[in-house]
Amino acid sequence: MAEVINKQVLLRDYVSGSAKESDMIVTSSTTKLKLPEGSKGVLVKNLYLSCDPYMRGRMRKSNLSSYVDAFKPGSVSPHTSTYSFICLPPNDFDLKTLQPITGYGVAKVLDSGDPNFKEGDLIWGITGWEEYSVINATRTHFKIHHTDVPLSYYTGILGMPGMTAYVGFYEICSPKKGEYVFISAAAGAVGQLVGQFAKLAGCYVVGSAGSKEKVDLLKNKFGFDEAFNYKEEPDLDAALKRYFPEGIDIYFENVGGKMLDAVIQNIRDHARIALCGMISQYNHEQTEGVHNLMTLVWKRARMEGFLVFEHYHLYPKFLEFLLPNIKEGKIVYVEDVAEGLENAPAALVGLFAGRNVGKQVVVVSHE
Amino acid sequence: MAEVINKQVLLRDYVSGSAKESDMIVTSSTTKLKLPEGSKGVLVKNLYLSCDPYMRGRMRKSNLSSYVDAFKPGSVSPHTSTYSFICLPPNDFDLKTLQPITGYGVAKVLDSGDPNFKEGDLIWGITGWEEYSVINATRTHFKIHHTDVPLSYYTGILGMPGMTAYVGFYEICSPKKGEYVFISAAAGAVGQLVGQFAKLAGCYVVGSAGSKEKVDLLKNKFGFDEAFNYKEEPDLDAALKRYFPEGIDIYFENVGGKMLDAVIQNIRDHARIALCGMISQYNHEQTEGVHNLMTLVWKRARMEGFLVFEHYHLYPKFLEFLLPNIKEGKIVYVEDVAEGLENAPAALVGLFAGRNVGKQVVVVSHE
Repeated sequence: MAEVINKQVLLRDYVSGSAKESDMIVTSSTTKLKLPEGSKGVLVKNLYLSCDPYMRGRMRKSNLSSYVDAFKPGSVSPHTSTYSFICLPPNDFDLKTLQPITGYGVAKVLDSGDPNFKEGDLIWGITGWEEYSVINATRTHFKIHHTDVPLSYYTGILGMPGMTAYVGFYEICSPKKGEYVFISAAAGAVGQLVGQFAKLAGCYVVGSAGSKEKVDLLKNKFGFDEAFNYKEEPDLDAALKRYFPEGIDIYFENVGGKMLDAVIQNIRDHARIALCGMISQYNHEQTEGVHNLMTLVWKRARMEGFLVFEHYHLYPKFLEFLLPNIKEGKIVYVEDVAEGLENAPAALVGLFAGRNVGKQVVVVSHE
Repeated sequence: MAEVINKQVLLRDYVSGSAKESDMIVTSSTTKLKLPEGSKGVLVKNLYLSCDPYMRGRMRKSNLSSYVDAFKPGSVSPHTSTYSFICLPPNDFDLKTLQPITGYGVAKVLDSGDPNFKEGDLIWGITGWEEYSVINATRTHFKIHHTDVPLSYYTGILGMPGMTAYVGFYEICSPKKGEYVFISAAAGAVGQLVGQFAKLAGCYVVGSAGSKEKVDLLKNKFGFDEAFNYKEEPDLDAALKRYFPEGIDIYFENVGGKMLDAVIQNIRDHARIALCGMISQYNHEQTEGVHNLMTLVWKRARMEGFLVFEHYHLYPKFLEFLLPNIKEGKIVYVEDVAEGLENAPAALVGLFAGRNVGKQVVVVSHE
């Protein structure tokens, strides 16, 4: 059985402070394009990889209170154990003890020992940051049935971020027509969708983002009622009062820190805050304090965290809602596409500096 | 019509920093024991007054984001307009422009222009910190039908604090048997009840308080499983890990600040935090920051503020549940009783130093 080269992205070591491109190594091993005899897993060719903010947490030394394990630099991954490394790393790390980063992606099944998947199937779910992966835990992987939309959408609008927007907005925020909705990191993978969902629901929607280009997208492409560049607002409280003279009913929280504090100062009675993530804090070792929580009492407000994977049973309902809206052009999606696995580290760390415009995708292979 | 002396407690001026006894003035006016012709209000004799933490907010200069107006030093109260002042204040304030502090209390109706109340009725609700009050807005006042319990209970276990415990625990926290419950300020007017409710619900209950005497009460009188003195715990996170090795499902939040941060570090999946109040912060002009909010995402936890007055429609159901429990001795209540209106200012400011043991009541008159 012939072996092929398998390019991979590995994490060098745990990262504290700002994540840098050099925290990862792009290297190659070889792999057989056939599962070992008796395997119950699937061997896939990875097509599109998803860069997601939560992955910063996995680059940190494991933390009891996090919901995902840290990546494990220095430990052997079950599905790299059949690899042999063919090139030397740029320093003296022992690559055999490293494992590729894992994350959401779209992949094609090359060989399957799992009765639920067969050769040629397209799937999305957790895979390796490499060209070929053996996936042993396929329980949380979805088969892709609709291919009349871009396949990369299954890393974004039709994948985990899309479900995150859907669950966070509809299930956690319980929107009502006419309500005032604010979204931070609004041009990102999740935010752009929440804004469009909120417009469909008849809400007034304002988003914040970190550049003029993103603000223009929010207003002109995604149909937000208003948008502002938070970097140009020295006083976030004043900015929010300008855009929400009546206050905020729903806040879809993606950034944390000062923005959350300013939003809480501007909530209305019975406001709902869906805590999706706090990207502004992920590169901090000591997070910023939030001071205005007493206002949650006065306003009888609810702040609720959620993790999308607990809501994946809603995926069929979500597709039924979203696919027609995409096909009719009622919901649009902007991706920021990095070509090639070698550009994946830069794409991932770029998220935390807000360099991406829209959903950050890495193309490993177009087919 | 003869006039009687009406002793009153007035607020001198807005208070910033720690509230002091001297921020209030005890003085006297005279009043007629008869409503003016055509009044639709009720004239009451005040019996018991309630000292409640939220009152600190009313001593602060009005804040748009608070749910209650500030007390108004320097403005004329509608129901003091018929008074004439008979003694000089201890300084040159114009008492005619001051008004008595208002708060929850138990009172007896002396004269009524309101068809819902008649002479001799006992009521509880918002009244003045004075011997006699004219109450014009009686919509939120409750008639007392059960007098085979101490009347002062209607400032506490059978009044606003009791309803607060009931609503916060049952409605906001949705407790399940076997869950781990933590209560701060647990020996206070609300906390002591939440703990007993939680035991009735089959939960494991730990409370924190600020003295050995209170900790003993929690364990020996209220039946908490464990209790600790937070002043003796330099590391609140470590203390909580000791009492909750499995983590916390429900936190009834009365204090805010560092304790809230430590609790969030120790919550379990799907934890619920009922935000009732944050007394540790009320004397601060700049509140402490809470740093661990990202954990609410990882743990899919909910933090929710509530105000009891939105839930008063549950009062009959509450009485039906609580009265038999009180009469059978299954739920007990500890009050800290200050005798006489002249001791009311000290009683009120004592709350913020934790001087009270149990519900702080002021007796204006025993009948």
